[in-house]
Amino acid sequence: MPTIPVGILGATGMVGQQFVALLARHPWFRVAWLGASQRSEGKAYREAAAWRLAAPLPDEVGDLDVDAATPGRAPQLVFSGLDSSVAGEIEAAFAAAGHIVVSNARNHRMEPTIPLLIPEINADHLALLDAQGAPGTTPGWKGRIVTNPNCAAVVLAMALAPLRAFGLKTAIVTTMQAISGAGYPGVASWDILGNIIPFIGGGEEEKIETETKKILGCLNDKRIELHPVTISAQTTRVGVQNGHTLSASVGLEHRPSLDAIVEAWRTFKGRPQELGLPSAPAQPIVYLTEPNRPQPSLDVDRGGGMTVSVGRLRPCPVLDYKFIALGHNTIRGAAGAAILNAELMHREGLL
Amino acid sequence: MPTIPVGILGATGMVGQQFVALLARHPWFRVAWLGASQRSEGKAYREAAAWRLAAPLPDEVGDLDVDAATPGRAPQLVFSGLDSSVAGEIEAAFAAAGHIVVSNARNHRMEPTIPLLIPEINADHLALLDAQGAPGTTPGWKGRIVTNPNCAAVVLAMALAPLRAFGLKTAIVTTMQAISGAGYPGVASWDILGNIIPFIGGGEEEKIETETKKILGCLNDKRIELHPVTISAQTTRVGVQNGHTLSASVGLEHRPSLDAIVEAWRTFKGRPQELGLPSAPAQPIVYLTEPNRPQPSLDVDRGGGMTVSVGRLRPCPVLDYKFIALGHNTIRGAAGAAILNAELMHREGLL
Amino acid sequence: MPTIPVGILGATGMVGQQFVALLARHPWFRVAWLGASQRSEGKAYREAAAWRLAAPLPDEVGDLDVDAATPGRAPQLVFSGLDSSVAGEIEAAFAAAGHIVVSNARNHRMEPTIPLLIPEINADHLALLDAQGAPGTTPGWKGRIVTNPNCAAVVLAMALAPLRAFGLKTAIVTTMQAISGAGYPGVASWDILGNIIPFIGGGEEEKIETETKKILGCLNDKRIELHPVTISAQTTRVGVQNGHTLSASVGLEHRPSLDAIVEAWRTFKGRPQELGLPSAPAQPIVYLTEPNRPQPSLDVDRGGGMTVSVGRLRPCPVLDYKFIALGHNTIRGAAGAAILNAELMHREGLL
Amino acid sequence: MPTIPVGILGATGMVGQQFVALLARHPWFRVAWLGASQRSEGKAYREAAAWRLAAPLPDEVGDLDVDAATPGRAPQLVFSGLDSSVAGEIEAAFAAAGHIVVSNARNHRMEPTIPLLIPEINADHLALLDAQGAPGTTPGWKGRIVTNPNCAAVVLAMALAPLRAFGLKTAIVTTMQAISGAGYPGVASWDILGNIIPFIGGGEEEKIETETKKILGCLNDKRIELHPVTISAQTTRVGVQNGHTLSASVGLEHRPSLDAIVEAWRTFKGRPQELGLPSAPAQPIVYLTEPNRPQPSLDVDRGGGMTVSVGRLRPCPVLDYKFIALGHNTIRGAAGAAILNAELMHREGLL
Repeated sequence: MPTIPVGILGATGMVGQQFVALLARHPWFRVAWLGASQRSEGKAYREAAAWRLAAPLPDEVGDLDVDAATPGRAPQLVFSGLDSSVAGEIEAAFAAAGHIVVSNARNHRMEPTIPLLIPEINADHLALLDAQGAPGTTPGWKGRIVTNPNCAAVVLAMALAPLRAFGLKTAIVTTMQAISGAGYPGVASWDILGNIIPFIGGGEEEKIETETKKILGCLNDKRIELHPVTISAQTTRVGVQNGHTLSASVGLEHRPSLDAIVEAWRTFKGRPQELGLPSAPAQPIVYLTEPNRPQPSLDVDRGGGMTVSVGRLRPCPVLDYKFIALGHNTIRGAAGAAILNAELMHREGLL
Repeated sequence: MPTIPVGILGATGMVGQQFVALLARHPWFRVAWLGASQRSEGKAYREAAAWRLAAPLPDEVGDLDVDAATPGRAPQLVFSGLDSSVAGEIEAAFAAAGHIVVSNARNHRMEPTIPLLIPEINADHLALLDAQGAPGTTPGWKGRIVTNPNCAAVVLAMALAPLRAFGLKTAIVTTMQAISGAGYPGVASWDILGNIIPFIGGGEEEKIETETKKILGCLNDKRIELHPVTISAQTTRVGVQNGHTLSASVGLEHRPSLDAIVEAWRTFKGRPQELGLPSAPAQPIVYLTEPNRPQPSLDVDRGGGMTVSVGRLRPCPVLDYKFIALGHNTIRGAAGAAILNAELMHREGLL
Repeated sequence: MPTIPVGILGATGMVGQQFVALLARHPWFRVAWLGASQRSEGKAYREAAAWRLAAPLPDEVGDLDVDAATPGRAPQLVFSGLDSSVAGEIEAAFAAAGHIVVSNARNHRMEPTIPLLIPEINADHLALLDAQGAPGTTPGWKGRIVTNPNCAAVVLAMALAPLRAFGLKTAIVTTMQAISGAGYPGVASWDILGNIIPFIGGGEEEKIETETKKILGCLNDKRIELHPVTISAQTTRVGVQNGHTLSASVGLEHRPSLDAIVEAWRTFKGRPQELGLPSAPAQPIVYLTEPNRPQPSLDVDRGGGMTVSVGRLRPCPVLDYKFIALGHNTIRGAAGAAILNAELMHREGLL
Repeated sequence: MPTIPVGILGATGMVGQQFVALLARHPWFRVAWLGASQRSEGKAYREAAAWRLAAPLPDEVGDLDVDAATPGRAPQLVFSGLDSSVAGEIEAAFAAAGHIVVSNARNHRMEPTIPLLIPEINADHLALLDAQGAPGTTPGWKGRIVTNPNCAAVVLAMALAPLRAFGLKTAIVTTMQAISGAGYPGVASWDILGNIIPFIGGGEEEKIETETKKILGCLNDKRIELHPVTISAQTTRVGVQNGHTLSASVGLEHRPSLDAIVEAWRTFKGRPQELGLPSAPAQPIVYLTEPNRPQPSLDVDRGGGMTVSVGRLRPCPVLDYKFIALGHNTIRGAAGAAILNAELMHREGLL
């Protein structure tokens, strides 16, 4: 029986619905509160959400009334799937009121005292939390905010993390991102059917180029030292339901062998695997040897959507190596990432 | 009234049908002969071809009987849309028998005496033709073979050609290629619907990496000196009907300004424009200033499918600049390319 | 040189853009005025419209300033691509102010004094126009409103019109409708990629069931007597860009032969063909004999998008015959239909 | 631990792979033998099959060697996913050799002594099996063949079965069928991307019109009396991965109320539910009350792909009622159906 009540901010959106679906049978967390915009306030979630996932809406959540997105009635732990247009202020208000906000929104990710977590990579960044509430500091709130990365950055960061050992210098990446990454209604079907849109708004490329450096960075005297890798991203939207695919070329100081890289990916593990967290995939990165993989429709759900799949590693004539990576953008890249963050915090005694 | 009879080898395939469609109202060329595999021999083209294009099959071509793919009854000028599994031998046989073979197949592209043409870029490479028939040389045939590039290489080569002036050194490119590039039946719908396949068979990446160097190379003492650019390609297949999209980063010795590059693209012209060839687009390269262009569904048919669209030029943190390019793979990248080659040869007195 | 200035109401929407595209080279009509919602007022059309068609936006229209959707500055002839949420009042205001409103909106279609035109079928219904302005009558306005049918109803009505001669009694129809029929942004890509939605809002099925009876009806003493056919429609949305496909079974009193029906379709003509109207297709209905046609991607653009394609006619074990029909929903089913209506009115001396 | 060894004929095809995937954790059946065409013979299944499903290939099956499709080494119970071009003879050979063949192929479905089973509807048709081996009868083989219906017929038959109580007379149905129904490679992506093909080969419409009558028929003196319903089908192919959607109108002698029909669907149960068969869905037919359901992407996996979803029931102006139905074509419509048949036979003591 799950005993920890949790709230969901932005509960009716695409990411909010993913939170509800993923928490449906969670061993620790139980959805007890739903916050959304005024339009939904007071309605049963069933009516307010216009459920759009194939996974069934659990009755006990469907029957909950949607509350305003204001602190007060929410439990201590709150997941945020808020849109970035409103997430900044609302999340800060919740943190100020003492809530632990585990957020998927971009607004606070790059703030110095806020962890940008991928628990397999940088669980130690949680140490930043101490600084959030320190008296006299900014922000100085009673609660805390923890964030997970942009849905494309997380795939890149996972693929690059094991390469730090080889002197990771540069990465050029082109993404082919699923429509679910744009939320709902998101991309108009007229724009994407049988088409590619070589642009994603909201600073997507900058997020990939900067967030990855923080994720891969070192905790040093309670600050994050950005990783020195230089990243160049071009992002595109494709007609795929779920799964961001990345084509990457990387420069590596030490020029390891192909086998050494594959081995580094295959053996990559972190705190979630050590702790046996409920959402942790047994293998965070899988290397596929077939010449035409990974593919969204075949590989996106590996490890319950929490495994990043990599393939086609081979020398790059310009930089050192090139490869393809794929991850589930609304699970490993959004709701699942935040839940893993909260699981880590719970086991580390931070809830 | 078109007066030059032409034949089409591989007339029933995807590229063959494009030849028929594009030649339907050609001012100079008239389809007079159709060659295909034994299965089609003797049938009316209408029955043999299972016409699959939205452009109507011209009645006068539909009524033609399909011949075997052997020299003899074909007119001197023959377009080849043959599959590479058979193109090598059949095209050589036609050239040996005295035909001018204007081919889209990959088999002969990299042979030293065979021009790999994009008339806007390297019309002077036609000088290689002299060597094809020189006594005592290889191949020494009576006819000639001229080729056009791989359907993705042509888009890259067009985008890169004007950048040679800036000291083009390196290019890293990820392609998102349309299904029509795989011929018919080509890609199974089960494999591509809502999916991306990060692999294209037949040495696609190597073709892009090597053909481009020949296309951009200099004619030097009747030989092609390969351009020194180093290219790295990752190719993917996406659910787009027509149009190969490329995401590229380039290294340029002279680091020109953004404006200088855009200007170089906009003003790029060649022999086809000078000669006013029927299939020549007024502007071979268009630079689109909207932040989310080019897109296959909006831009692929520019210039009758012969214009390459470029957009999103901006600095690349790793190399020098990055951008998106798009071209129509069965027109500029196949049948239209070959027809433009033949038009050039006609006006240069080589037919 | 086109000499008749026309305005477009709802100029920035999907249908509005189609009006602009189709009128780009019209021999009679010249776009001189654009009306849209307050959000667009005062902006250049180029900025306001976010042009979304592959056909280029004509510069002279792109440079026009968008006006409010109120009478006054508009020319006498105004096309309306307004959304039905606002079309009723705005069109009435324009008609009251003396404009000829040629509308694609559903609001006024079923009013007794307003023609619901498909010029090939019921050009004589224009006689209703006399009643619109008659003193003491409703509406009694100075101008006039003429409408074209719903985009699926027009395909059905075209296919059924020649069957009236055979004692048309019943029709059961299932539609598979393109996303462009929902306007822009219209259907969310999340909802339709790789999916079917067996429902179209706004009373789509009722429109098909009722409008068709008015279109096929007889003008009798300046009133329309509805055709007695009973129609049952189920409408679905599919992932097709343009083209509504209909699967129909019909009951026919006289049980004609298959050949008689095909002949009736093939020879079907009307006033637009007699008058040689610019947008009139040479053949309004084409019967395709291939067993797997019509198909949107191969047949939707026949006759410039104004031809309805029919195929697969065969006996129906329950009613009498069944068949497939296809039409272009934004051309024959919207903007093209309205333009043909205006052309007819011009040639009939009603402008 | 599953104890009953089973074989799979046609193991490498689309349906064969579905058998492997569905049997991966079956409580009774264990895949022990794989038969396929000569091309695959002797290869490990992993190499021969080119696994194309997102569900992982179980290692113990991947390691099996593929055998020829001939009796001998196969276990008694054999599932057949053979293509109809070869299924007739091969299945007969297996039955003659004493095997129980539980087939998805169409070849033997309409033979008088062969059950065409949907266990919820006509479990009693298994009584036909006695006749298969009766001395002096045709076929007189030692083994037995049991079949499941065509993948679209099964959806229609499920939806119609509860309506027999209301005097089911007629049904007009238009199908929108998924590409997986065409096997692999099946439909070319060029043909179906953004398109509809209003035709499915292999007599699809006739299968729906005739098989349904046998499925719904009564066992009478060891013969099946076809149900008298008259069915008219038009079948189309749409760009959906899995799930056949049907738009149906039905004529019912007794004209029940809407509520009575919904109740009949909701309460419909059969032997699989009584016996608690492993593959039996708790509810074989679900009626969805939302106005825009069922949809393939949201509803196809209900009941593990064994539930048929129905929605939008309302009066039909021409016949009596109309509605939408949806079923998973490779689970309820193919491999899952056959497995349910075998489960039934096992519990009825017929294995």
